[in-house]
Amino acid sequence: MPAAASDQQTQLLHEYIASCSNWGRWGTDDEVGALNLVGPAEVMRAAGLVKKGTPISLTLPYDQAGPQPGGFRNNPQLLLTATGTDHVGGAQDPLPGGFGPSRGFGFSDDVLVMPTQSGTQWDSLSHIFWEGRMFNGRPADQVNSRGAAANGIENYTGRIVMPGVLIDMPAHRGVDALEPGDAIEAAEIAEFLADHDLTVQPGDALLVRTGFMAARRGNWGDYAGGAAPGLSLHLAPWLHSHDIAAVATDTWGVEVRPNQIDYFQPLHIVSLVHGGIAFGEMFDLDALAADCAQDGVYTFMFVASPLPITGASGAPVSALAIK
Amino acid sequence: MPAAASDQQTQLLHEYIASCSNWGRWGTDDEVGALNLVGPAEVMRAAGLVKKGTPISLTLPYDQAGPQPGGFRNNPQLLLTATGTDHVGGAQDPLPGGFGPSRGFGFSDDVLVMPTQSGTQWDSLSHIFWEGRMFNGRPADQVNSRGAAANGIENYTGRIVMPGVLIDMPAHRGVDALEPGDAIEAAEIAEFLADHDLTVQPGDALLVRTGFMAARRGNWGDYAGGAAPGLSLHLAPWLHSHDIAAVATDTWGVEVRPNQIDYFQPLHIVSLVHGGIAFGEMFDLDALAADCAQDGVYTFMFVASPLPITGASGAPVSALAIK
Amino acid sequence: MPAAASDQQTQLLHEYIASCSNWGRWGTDDEVGALNLVGPAEVMRAAGLVKKGTPISLTLPYDQAGPQPGGFRNNPQLLLTATGTDHVGGAQDPLPGGFGPSRGFGFSDDVLVMPTQSGTQWDSLSHIFWEGRMFNGRPADQVNSRGAAANGIENYTGRIVMPGVLIDMPAHRGVDALEPGDAIEAAEIAEFLADHDLTVQPGDALLVRTGFMAARRGNWGDYAGGAAPGLSLHLAPWLHSHDIAAVATDTWGVEVRPNQIDYFQPLHIVSLVHGGIAFGEMFDLDALAADCAQDGVYTFMFVASPLPITGASGAPVSALAIK
Amino acid sequence: MPAAASDQQTQLLHEYIASCSNWGRWGTDDEVGALNLVGPAEVMRAAGLVKKGTPISLTLPYDQAGPQPGGFRNNPQLLLTATGTDHVGGAQDPLPGGFGPSRGFGFSDDVLVMPTQSGTQWDSLSHIFWEGRMFNGRPADQVNSRGAAANGIENYTGRIVMPGVLIDMPAHRGVDALEPGDAIEAAEIAEFLADHDLTVQPGDALLVRTGFMAARRGNWGDYAGGAAPGLSLHLAPWLHSHDIAAVATDTWGVEVRPNQIDYFQPLHIVSLVHGGIAFGEMFDLDALAADCAQDGVYTFMFVASPLPITGASGAPVSALAIK
Repeated sequence: MPAAASDQQTQLLHEYIASCSNWGRWGTDDEVGALNLVGPAEVMRAAGLVKKGTPISLTLPYDQAGPQPGGFRNNPQLLLTATGTDHVGGAQDPLPGGFGPSRGFGFSDDVLVMPTQSGTQWDSLSHIFWEGRMFNGRPADQVNSRGAAANGIENYTGRIVMPGVLIDMPAHRGVDALEPGDAIEAAEIAEFLADHDLTVQPGDALLVRTGFMAARRGNWGDYAGGAAPGLSLHLAPWLHSHDIAAVATDTWGVEVRPNQIDYFQPLHIVSLVHGGIAFGEMFDLDALAADCAQDGVYTFMFVASPLPITGASGAPVSALAIK
Repeated sequence: MPAAASDQQTQLLHEYIASCSNWGRWGTDDEVGALNLVGPAEVMRAAGLVKKGTPISLTLPYDQAGPQPGGFRNNPQLLLTATGTDHVGGAQDPLPGGFGPSRGFGFSDDVLVMPTQSGTQWDSLSHIFWEGRMFNGRPADQVNSRGAAANGIENYTGRIVMPGVLIDMPAHRGVDALEPGDAIEAAEIAEFLADHDLTVQPGDALLVRTGFMAARRGNWGDYAGGAAPGLSLHLAPWLHSHDIAAVATDTWGVEVRPNQIDYFQPLHIVSLVHGGIAFGEMFDLDALAADCAQDGVYTFMFVASPLPITGASGAPVSALAIK
Repeated sequence: MPAAASDQQTQLLHEYIASCSNWGRWGTDDEVGALNLVGPAEVMRAAGLVKKGTPISLTLPYDQAGPQPGGFRNNPQLLLTATGTDHVGGAQDPLPGGFGPSRGFGFSDDVLVMPTQSGTQWDSLSHIFWEGRMFNGRPADQVNSRGAAANGIENYTGRIVMPGVLIDMPAHRGVDALEPGDAIEAAEIAEFLADHDLTVQPGDALLVRTGFMAARRGNWGDYAGGAAPGLSLHLAPWLHSHDIAAVATDTWGVEVRPNQIDYFQPLHIVSLVHGGIAFGEMFDLDALAADCAQDGVYTFMFVASPLPITGASGAPVSALAIK
Repeated sequence: MPAAASDQQTQLLHEYIASCSNWGRWGTDDEVGALNLVGPAEVMRAAGLVKKGTPISLTLPYDQAGPQPGGFRNNPQLLLTATGTDHVGGAQDPLPGGFGPSRGFGFSDDVLVMPTQSGTQWDSLSHIFWEGRMFNGRPADQVNSRGAAANGIENYTGRIVMPGVLIDMPAHRGVDALEPGDAIEAAEIAEFLADHDLTVQPGDALLVRTGFMAARRGNWGDYAGGAAPGLSLHLAPWLHSHDIAAVATDTWGVEVRPNQIDYFQPLHIVSLVHGGIAFGEMFDLDALAADCAQDGVYTFMFVASPLPITGASGAPVSALAIK
């Protein structure tokens, strides 16, 4: 980045913040932001989108073959504390824990060590700060070494059940995958929706496929943390005016990288910190896209309630599109 | 336990195994067991149970206040790698990872360390062994220190979307909670269903509330691992004949403890290892029970797809009853 | 604690800080504090104390039987990633990692998860802050979520090789163990030294046994974190005037608990934060005490270099008294 | 590797095993192997080698800049549970844990997650198996998911205090570093010893520098796990006949890689599994080598007692050469 952002960029960022902010919209105590747009009607509408009884998983496996390069964020590691080889070898007779003779019984057990943001996950509203504040104006120092006292990911649990729409950008553009640096603008999303006779409604989830996960799968390189296609900063007003409750992409950071202005992750600043929109990252949208291409139906019941990890900056999720 | 199980008990166990086994029923390659009973029709039926648009979370918070006594299984621990206090104190400017000057941007991040079976979770079909075998006859030594090569929890991901029925036993008995050692028999479940004009169908999930979580919440004692109310071993034939695909309780181990015969967790041996029924443990059914008592509706869309932790013995899950 | 500390207590604390501070004594860049008192002469003197060729370990086992109650600090957990049962069961043939056919070779491997302060350990000079500063006046915010940029425990590595003296307080008092709340004052240490014809010299390590570990071993209760015998706050001037480089006790926090004034761990504030004296906690001094009682020799070569865990607040250590 | 090892190689391996085995030499209960060669006389001899009072650390920092490529073994990760930024930002007032008002007091704390073999470490005698056995003939299945019931690294704690000799191979050969695949034979070690008027005695530790750590430091590549210089398999009889108690190198696996015969790590099979010699890996010998080159003294007191991690396959160590 240059030594300073230009005045013009700074002004634009502040205009977007001002026009897209939802601070206070759902009360000063609110910790879920745009998910307030999802109520019983939206859940009913979502259930009505189940047409053929097919759940499709949108979650990458959590394992050592994941996209992380290691270091700040490692891939999920599973550590076994009891195994079938122990059982077969007689090491579980008697059973541990004072449970007595095994009499043929055996078990496996394990411990998971994973950065909450290492794979398919939701950002919490405590994940990103802007000038000392997080969503709804709460002070950033409410997130200390013991976790987030407010806006933690547990607030999302039980809530992400809503109508979902898939925007398949590479299909729209007639390419296999968007390239790093390719920004997705509002006009293009509007085109896609029109082409498929779709409209979005308040409380919908927008799942935007870039094809970048498909391009890098199994040979991740700098997939997680490097340059990437993604949503344009300039999409922020469209997301706000359409009252989109959640967006998710098949990239590490939702928005295009490198960033379009000399601020780091400006769409996060505008739409997550101020708009309170749920951001989902590294969602695997390939199987869903294949199914949508096959049956021509790009809407579905989206169920993606994250694990209630108290005070966490984000959480892994077993996300489903149910068609 | 006594030095040996009696011949009578051993014979009974083997009879139940023989009569309730689903090994081979869905082919020799099958790794999901009774979840095969859930197909598009069951998913459609589940979606049809969404009547008022209300998702209810069935998952305990994953944190240090959880039910584990520590030792073999600790409670989930969240370890922060970036905080709001760091941001406020200037420790994130420049941003780590070579992302340049912060210009007002900040973030939190964290690592989760948790035994997969420390809170609300599904057992995988690789979790329990019987005489060297796991579900579908696979050798137990396919589960070694690198995880389960077969029957791991990832096989359940994308699948647990089905009609659910709540059996609220303490309400049925007119008590606050069942006591440790109280076994729930088939007759009592049949009564509850009849009382509420309910029937179960193949592919349903049975959620059985004992009230034991409510009784111990926040003052767990030996809740996780000690004596507990739960399903009777003698319920196995009923589960099998009704083609129940999944059972979940608000206790640590689904079945009653102490066990009714001199084998450890015999219902696991019969219905999980041989029947391939999905076992869910430490599900928080209290809010759901209150809602069902209020509206008199004990059926719902049950969505509880576990995290796809490759090769794991089980996985945490953000489980929902959607009414 | 009362709503405020008394003026008298506050004045005393500030007097001790003023009189015992070593800030700046070894330069503004110094990160090792009183360990500067240990130079080649002290190392030679230490080596000269090896009289019979007997190393005695002063470190508690790092395992689940450790003294921690869990929660903020769990006991060390070892998680195996390869086992002998895997080897025997054939799960290591071929060898993982692409190492080819095993041809009889096998191995075990494991991951350690432990709070650095969960067992026998040294506090680093970045472990304790006082009014926004740590030793040598460095700002506390140099310790953020990425670790300590200064004063981390790695500065101690390679340095804790010095003459050691054991002060066996319960032997001196003719009791099995001091009781929680019992404070050890300078006069009593002077008596013990005189009784055994000992003097201390600049750069020495003082190992003070209270017997509290022996009293609680295996039935720890609130040993780690609760009330405990220990060094008196009023010992601070004596430690300073004698240029003691390191103190270690068989308790969790070196100093007596409850604290003698209405400040938390005031001896840490005075002697660690300001004096820069190395504090060692949960050292197992029982075998050493038995040996000293047997041969009447209370001095030894003390070798207790901690693991160089970059930026850590403390580190486990395999501490030795070599007699 | 080829489909099978040649008969000649197999015969050689078995001859070395037969001639170098110490199984039973120190009794059937022995769990420390060649460290039995170190008694009071050797400790006294070691202390006598302290000539100038200079401890030199031989341990790599344990941090994310370590040599591991990630995956099976990650680099050590330190996770902070309390920070100075928290203290400065007011997040520690009141103090956590019910310790009351902070009154100026603050602290940092942290959790270490590290594979025991990720940096400078000793292999335990439970780390390597050969045809179902580990050192002293113990069955390999004594090492299960709960750790090693015998031969664990805790047996080494308190024991590795002995005379040490540095063999500086690149200096001997006049190169900066040996190359991957370069094997160090007995003749060359004998030359080095003769050139420096050194002899080795029973119970000595042999520290062999290859220069490979210096060549790779900070740009590790496949340093940990790839091809490397190291000790020759054919050195086994020399190590045995000289009663060397411990060997350590600046490489990941002590012995030369690729291996010289079609068995994986055959020197481990012969000298660790059968000889019971302590193997130290990734010791940083560069500062020591520089010091030895400067003063011409290649012997020292070697103090390298590992952490007593109960049942572990190895352990990190703060190793010292004290000259």
